[in-house]
Amino acid sequence: MLTVKRESKVSLTQQVYEQIRSGILKQKFTEGEKLPSTRELAASLGISRNVCLEAFDRLITEGYLDVRPRSGTYVAKGITFQREEERSHPVFPARVSNLSKDVIDFRAANPAMDHFPRKIWGRLLKEVCIDTPEEAFAYSGSEGVRKLREVLSQYLLKIRGVHCHADQIIITAGATQALYMISRVLTHHNDRFIAVEDPVTDEMRRIFSIAGAKVHPVPADEEGIIPESLPLHIKPSFLFTIPSHQFPLGGTLSIQRRVKLIEYSRKMDTYIVEDDYDSEFTYEGVPVHSIQGLNPERVLYVGTFSKILSPALRIGYVVLPPYLVNRFRELKWYTDRHTSSLEQHVLARFIEEGFLDRHVRRMKKIYQKRREALTASLREHFPSAKILGQSSGMHLVVEFPGVVFCEKVKELLHEAGVLVYPVEDYALNKGAHQQKVVLGYGSLTEKKIKEGVNRLSEALQRIKEAPS
Amino acid sequence: MLTVKRESKVSLTQQVYEQIRSGILKQKFTEGEKLPSTRELAASLGISRNVCLEAFDRLITEGYLDVRPRSGTYVAKGITFQREEERSHPVFPARVSNLSKDVIDFRAANPAMDHFPRKIWGRLLKEVCIDTPEEAFAYSGSEGVRKLREVLSQYLLKIRGVHCHADQIIITAGATQALYMISRVLTHHNDRFIAVEDPVTDEMRRIFSIAGAKVHPVPADEEGIIPESLPLHIKPSFLFTIPSHQFPLGGTLSIQRRVKLIEYSRKMDTYIVEDDYDSEFTYEGVPVHSIQGLNPERVLYVGTFSKILSPALRIGYVVLPPYLVNRFRELKWYTDRHTSSLEQHVLARFIEEGFLDRHVRRMKKIYQKRREALTASLREHFPSAKILGQSSGMHLVVEFPGVVFCEKVKELLHEAGVLVYPVEDYALNKGAHQQKVVLGYGSLTEKKIKEGVNRLSEALQRIKEAPS
Repeated sequence: MLTVKRESKVSLTQQVYEQIRSGILKQKFTEGEKLPSTRELAASLGISRNVCLEAFDRLITEGYLDVRPRSGTYVAKGITFQREEERSHPVFPARVSNLSKDVIDFRAANPAMDHFPRKIWGRLLKEVCIDTPEEAFAYSGSEGVRKLREVLSQYLLKIRGVHCHADQIIITAGATQALYMISRVLTHHNDRFIAVEDPVTDEMRRIFSIAGAKVHPVPADEEGIIPESLPLHIKPSFLFTIPSHQFPLGGTLSIQRRVKLIEYSRKMDTYIVEDDYDSEFTYEGVPVHSIQGLNPERVLYVGTFSKILSPALRIGYVVLPPYLVNRFRELKWYTDRHTSSLEQHVLARFIEEGFLDRHVRRMKKIYQKRREALTASLREHFPSAKILGQSSGMHLVVEFPGVVFCEKVKELLHEAGVLVYPVEDYALNKGAHQQKVVLGYGSLTEKKIKEGVNRLSEALQRIKEAPS
Repeated sequence: MLTVKRESKVSLTQQVYEQIRSGILKQKFTEGEKLPSTRELAASLGISRNVCLEAFDRLITEGYLDVRPRSGTYVAKGITFQREEERSHPVFPARVSNLSKDVIDFRAANPAMDHFPRKIWGRLLKEVCIDTPEEAFAYSGSEGVRKLREVLSQYLLKIRGVHCHADQIIITAGATQALYMISRVLTHHNDRFIAVEDPVTDEMRRIFSIAGAKVHPVPADEEGIIPESLPLHIKPSFLFTIPSHQFPLGGTLSIQRRVKLIEYSRKMDTYIVEDDYDSEFTYEGVPVHSIQGLNPERVLYVGTFSKILSPALRIGYVVLPPYLVNRFRELKWYTDRHTSSLEQHVLARFIEEGFLDRHVRRMKKIYQKRREALTASLREHFPSAKILGQSSGMHLVVEFPGVVFCEKVKELLHEAGVLVYPVEDYALNKGAHQQKVVLGYGSLTEKKIKEGVNRLSEALQRIKEAPS
């Protein structure tokens, strides 16, 4: 009936236990069936009786076996059931694309991973892990590590003109979670409508819609969102903008438009959600101060360390008007308690000890060189192309007169080993951006950038020459 | 008009820029007003003209100033607006309670933080940070780090009898996020009702309700959820249970009840959500296998490293039937992209290199001693009290005949320097558990435990003797 393998890594007790258990579950032993005594079983298997006693004890405790005094041990009632058939397994599509190594991908997502400050970060991680007080290993408040929020409030004042107390900050899992939470808190069952600049990434739209919000597009031009196009007939729960370096168009919102957004939010009694994407890497002039600093009472300011450090850290934040803080703390507590603590402590030290400033200066030089490699290549190959939104960040937009980036063209480019991102794909209202593509250069070396533009040029040439 | 401080840390350019900018915003300079030339301004402030040119350039770029050729520099239009009055600031209630140091808190939340394996974890953190491939610093898939999911699927099979492929696992920010996501995915607008064992923590209920689910209580007794009490008139989106060590009652669900839950879920065509809370620390016998292993097609298995390592890590997971994986990956991607990567890599090594097994064995001994200190003290001071659910985990339940733990009694105990947690507070249907309290001992030393029971005994004595 049972067998044991002495040479197995699994203990004899475990082997006996597992065989009886699975025998019961698979109905080899049926309800009410009497088992041999532990003495008989031990003898038949040639093992110690103690092994059998231990296995039986466990099966009795778990309810698989019943002992009837002066009679024996029986399979308990109420255990047997038919195995359920497996439903068909779908194939899991991998999110990480399985591009062949040779494709040059101008996707604007990851920063230069090869320049992450591994040594300093690793040293700080170890230090924090060893010397931080015991509380750091317990639950923290949902708002995140106090020290980081204090350091951050000073940093944001200095760098971005953001006015806030540390208590107005909630540390989030990147900007994504901040935007998801904002949508959950500010939209309500009967009032789910938000004003979003158009074009905007599909991912942003999905964050809003998964949180239950309905997106009303507000056109943006090369300078950013157009305040005159904001809806007046209906009050949005909030208005979403990326003023520092609009994605995808790359514009920087002027002070006049910022003031108009504030006036709009006051008139409609609503909020501005300011995603300060890419504000740190400004190559021409200095970054424009945040909208938050102009009117802290109406602006929810969202930032992240995904671009200036690494998206793998999942550390972002939202700066809130004080009267909204408790609702966000509550939502955060019941969705994931708080963001992982150790790396928050590390980040606080990283900022406080001046490493972040140094890192940003270093990265700015690297991105500037990559940007120059890209613009130089583009000017060489495409003298008539118009380059937009290159003054900051890690992406720019190119308008190629006469080229429409339809699916067919994208496919041909992919075949030629280069991936570009048409602005039209990001547009909610179609038709205004057909000749523009986004080129992200943050994670590409200068060599790759040049090669990528080469491929783009050759492929577009072939497409033009092909009989249509 | 303007002033500069040479000894300030702020650069002269920044000082000039800030004063003109804030002057415009505060309407000290009005729309259309002509500014002195950079030459005049430099002379009046006694600074270099280049400083003024730089500050003006920046103000022009940002749109604060307009240059009219052959005329001069003017305050631009459309900037001035009234400051908005601040709304009243509410007081932020701190989530971390400000207990006086002397109160002994039998709250069952944190594990023994003083035994976190700081040295090994710190060393692995540094190693991973330095030697892991570059991709570890980019976005990962929303399901989490592949290596950790592979290691985890083997670990869960060995320790908990969970049958799954690594692709069925989603790494989450603790069990909280797993449960939040489950509620979001499995409940729908017109079908928001879930069956939850009662009593259950308030926090659990809030996770479900914030995610939009409506809780239907199913009574649990000292052995766990009672299958006969499951609702038949209405189909729940899922049924929630903590079978290994029910919280708060402490029971372990028998195999018979597990089978009945499975039969119920098949009959009603619904899911079982198995929160395998506290399964690792079993002091009497060995842990009962998971429900998931009995029927992987219907069970969503939730676990966390909060209790066996540290809640500050925020690493948990959900094991899904294959056909649900894509919906969870999508929700995770649009709520926070993925869980922070570095510590996932560390955890994978920690498990693979045998440190977790060793840590669990060590902690089991520590908790066992704490448990024994608690049960011994309780038996000494309260010979008639009944101790329940002590066979595993980091909490147990005590029933004190004749004592009703109302608010007044809780207050008097707090004054006496000891905090206990009445089971009645966790009950949705009130009345069945008035004489029971939960005592968590995971984060208390043996000395504190003894002192805590002393205080409890003295205080309850005084309460009994007091004229009511």
